[in-house]
Amino acid sequence: MATIGMKELAKKLKLSTATVSKALRDSYDISEKTKQRVLKLAHELNYVPNAHASGLRGKKSKTIAVVIPEVADSYFAQAINGVETVAQKEGFHVLVYLTHEQVEKENLILQELLNGRVDGVLISVTSQSKDVTTIDKLISTGIPVVFFDRVFEGQGNGQITTDDFDASYKLTVHLIEQACKHIVFLLFSESLNISTQRMNGYKRALHEYGFNFTENNLLICTNQDQENKESIYKLLARKDRPDAIIASVEKLIMPTYLACMERNLVIPGNIRVAAFSNLVQAEILNPAITTITQPAFEMGKTAADLLLKALKGKPIDQEESNVVLPSVLEIRNSTKTPF
Amino acid sequence: MATIGMKELAKKLKLSTATVSKALRDSYDISEKTKQRVLKLAHELNYVPNAHASGLRGKKSKTIAVVIPEVADSYFAQAINGVETVAQKEGFHVLVYLTHEQVEKENLILQELLNGRVDGVLISVTSQSKDVTTIDKLISTGIPVVFFDRVFEGQGNGQITTDDFDASYKLTVHLIEQACKHIVFLLFSESLNISTQRMNGYKRALHEYGFNFTENNLLICTNQDQENKESIYKLLARKDRPDAIIASVEKLIMPTYLACMERNLVIPGNIRVAAFSNLVQAEILNPAITTITQPAFEMGKTAADLLLKALKGKPIDQEESNVVLPSVLEIRNSTKTPF
Repeated sequence: MATIGMKELAKKLKLSTATVSKALRDSYDISEKTKQRVLKLAHELNYVPNAHASGLRGKKSKTIAVVIPEVADSYFAQAINGVETVAQKEGFHVLVYLTHEQVEKENLILQELLNGRVDGVLISVTSQSKDVTTIDKLISTGIPVVFFDRVFEGQGNGQITTDDFDASYKLTVHLIEQACKHIVFLLFSESLNISTQRMNGYKRALHEYGFNFTENNLLICTNQDQENKESIYKLLARKDRPDAIIASVEKLIMPTYLACMERNLVIPGNIRVAAFSNLVQAEILNPAITTITQPAFEMGKTAADLLLKALKGKPIDQEESNVVLPSVLEIRNSTKTPF
Repeated sequence: MATIGMKELAKKLKLSTATVSKALRDSYDISEKTKQRVLKLAHELNYVPNAHASGLRGKKSKTIAVVIPEVADSYFAQAINGVETVAQKEGFHVLVYLTHEQVEKENLILQELLNGRVDGVLISVTSQSKDVTTIDKLISTGIPVVFFDRVFEGQGNGQITTDDFDASYKLTVHLIEQACKHIVFLLFSESLNISTQRMNGYKRALHEYGFNFTENNLLICTNQDQENKESIYKLLARKDRPDAIIASVEKLIMPTYLACMERNLVIPGNIRVAAFSNLVQAEILNPAITTITQPAFEMGKTAADLLLKALKGKPIDQEESNVVLPSVLEIRNSTKTPF
């Protein structure tokens, strides 16, 4: 696709390049109205500020930011290691920012990054993120943004995800094959792309095997462990108690296991449990837990590679900018049919 | 007029830069006599205790570095959250650097930080670190350094540790009270201060309860999971097979549990296992593992508070610069006497 330069953009807008440049940098001396006009057309005409614009920003910081919800999660910890491997090799520094799943915090961080402290941004958005404005601003300021795992579909300079739909479908089929008839899906966020994909893969499997999907099949969880444990505890007292639970993120494993223990329900005897998780200790849990394991390190590495390519102004083809890496279904005792 | 730096001052006084830095800050843990000596020479040689060298470095970066061995470890993940809480509140950015337990990498990182990219450094050293040269350079350049958990005794602008000796002593006594007669200590590093403290607490308990300590009581582990699993697997085939194992760091839990499983040894029936670990999932392991849990979040927070204080040039008294926070012994099934 043809790209447009800042000069043409200015011409079409009947503005000076300086004004356009300032608007793209979110400068205080440009009115909000003008900024909106510039951003709108820049977006429509696929304006790519690439290496040149970032060159205009002055001296490179040789630093990339990794913006993630939390670090106490095996997936993110492993992904950072992947990012770091690439960064160290290329002589880049890595700034890690934690959003703690708060969209306001994420926004503040991204706003701050507009000041040019970093050359590029890797991001896995919070469970509430929806607004793409600041991300767009970063990109038009010449700071490329690459999403990994938790992405905004079709946004940024690229995205690295896993086959969430397929993985979830496979896991659900596995549970159905273990004779599970009432599988409940613990949904972590209703707005996250990965949540939707995982939920849809689950729904598809139910549908294909002739099971109805009702609201009783979903339990919506929060970021609070205690709250989640209580919801699951209640779930386990329902008349139509589930015979299997899918935890759609790692942090839901603890509350699920604890709630089962407190209800004296044996896993897998009374109930099967599986999770999307990169927990190193999955094998030594009581019982060892069946997981969908994401290639976290590889994802971090691929995302960093892509970001550095964008940073250097190299052309990125569609295939590179939208990478889907396969997850692995690791079946362990928590979903096996007991003898 | 020629000025003299803190480093030359230290050299002429035959003192460490840390001591000179502390003396110039009127720290409580420097004797009045030494302070007078330092001040006298500083005056004679025209040392300018600017605000301070950091002022000379030019513009503040409002960034602190956290240099740690790895992020895929519950302790460090939780400690970063503690650091981050303070940093966000004070408007500081946090750069996370991973050394992957490689002293060469750590040195490169610290060398790089001399360029003034950050205003201060929080560090937990690698298992091989011994050399304090670059740390001294940082301090004399006006970049304060605070150690947490893995420290160089008496170095830096301060250190935050836990009561490793006492905690290890208590854990060992607990095992002895469970009738364990041959407890093996998995040592992670022979040079780390925390390893020595933990080993010494263990030795003290053995000694007090009349057990001999021989080389058979120690198994020296590495940073390689597979290698560790093999060593432990061999250990479990010895004629004098241990009846208890203390894993001195979290990463030794996996190889220990796996080696026991492969030898068909039941924990705690055949062998008790305990670990120094902040693993959130400790309670749902098979079996739930007895741990010494460090106040990781609090340690990160305290270290960051101390660093910011040093950064602002505020006086730091002895009590503040050497904080020892208590760990908690959490007894779970892995060390209980089975019925």
